Amino acid sequence: MKVLIIGATGHVGAAAVRALEGKHELIRVGRSTNPSVDLDDPATIEALFTEVGDVDAIICTAGHVPFKPVTELTREDFESGFYGKTLAQLDLVRIGLPHVREGGSITLTTGVTARAAIPTGSAAAMASGAIESFVMAAAGEMPRGIRINVASPTVLESATHFHDFFPGFPPASDEAVGNLYRRAVESIDNGTTYVLD
Amino acid sequence: MKVLIIGATGHVGAAAVRALEGKHELIRVGRSTNPSVDLDDPATIEALFTEVGDVDAIICTAGHVPFKPVTELTREDFESGFYGKTLAQLDLVRIGLPHVREGGSITLTTGVTARAAIPTGSAAAMASGAIESFVMAAAGEMPRGIRINVASPTVLESATHFHDFFPGFPPASDEAVGNLYRRAVESIDNGTTYVLD
Repeated sequence: MKVLIIGATGHVGAAAVRALEGKHELIRVGRSTNPSVDLDDPATIEALFTEVGDVDAIICTAGHVPFKPVTELTREDFESGFYGKTLAQLDLVRIGLPHVREGGSITLTTGVTARAAIPTGSAAAMASGAIESFVMAAAGEMPRGIRINVASPTVLESATHFHDFFPGFPPASDEAVGNLYRRAVESIDNGTTYVLD
Repeated sequence: MKVLIIGATGHVGAAAVRALEGKHELIRVGRSTNPSVDLDDPATIEALFTEVGDVDAIICTAGHVPFKPVTELTREDFESGFYGKTLAQLDLVRIGLPHVREGGSITLTTGVTARAAIPTGSAAAMASGAIESFVMAAAGEMPRGIRINVASPTVLESATHFHDFFPGFPPASDEAVGNLYRRAVESIDNGTTYVLD
């Protein structure tokens, strides 16, 4: 299958690449790759599909949210979390869907912050919870047999700079996280949130 | 307790009023009450608290989202759902929090669309899922012993014009839905999503 991986240079994206390379034709895309995409700018999503054409699967591991105590979150912070993590991925669904072949799939990414409280994590929770409920609801309305799922892993072993934010959370192996994306691409699942705690 | 109920003229708000009236001092607020508030305009939230002063509890049953098939949802629809249902309530939390007395509570509202797929419901799912995860994450960071919870009821018996959108979903009695708000106000729960299916 022809698989477009957005956010391929990040920790999660790299794990997805390792799980899928050699098995599928991968197009690895980030902000500074060629081709590139910046999910904060929907015009670059349009341009990306003009360049790469139709695909069998889209994987998105990109997105950003602010981390602040709830008492310090401003209206702009909530907007930043929504646009940076939620709408970024929904724009990709919206713009990418006509370019996904019949029977293909779209896989989004959230994380453990959607279901476990960590200090400064409430905007991240908001952004991820939005995606997980959206995927649950959207699955049954996807056209042409296209499936949509979301990988929601805990912190990765390789993302050591995040470990102190998740005390007592056993990190997941990069292999286990990568396998969530392989399963999403090669399974018949639709509307599933793959949880890895 | 002094309880501010926003959205008091809607079906869910009226159910909350019935569960709490006679037991607490209620301030019932909507877009066209006196005092009034329009959650789409944060300045009116500021003005509301200037008028009513400090309270023991805030209940929000207001919010609006677009209902469309996922293939027809535009970027503006997703923004409308976020601003109308998610950020509207988060603005209320942000602006109202300093006006909630020590040990008080804030109760938000989502609904069954956060966890059950219905046709045209994916933007509603997004908006409600965002609130439920936010509340889970924000609870432990709330200052001065203030609690935050969310009521997530299924369709109400009295909201008959919605029944056809939820085939096979047994409507909840207005009394049962109202009791979720009484429980949120009078319990020690924090970070809870009260599910009523």
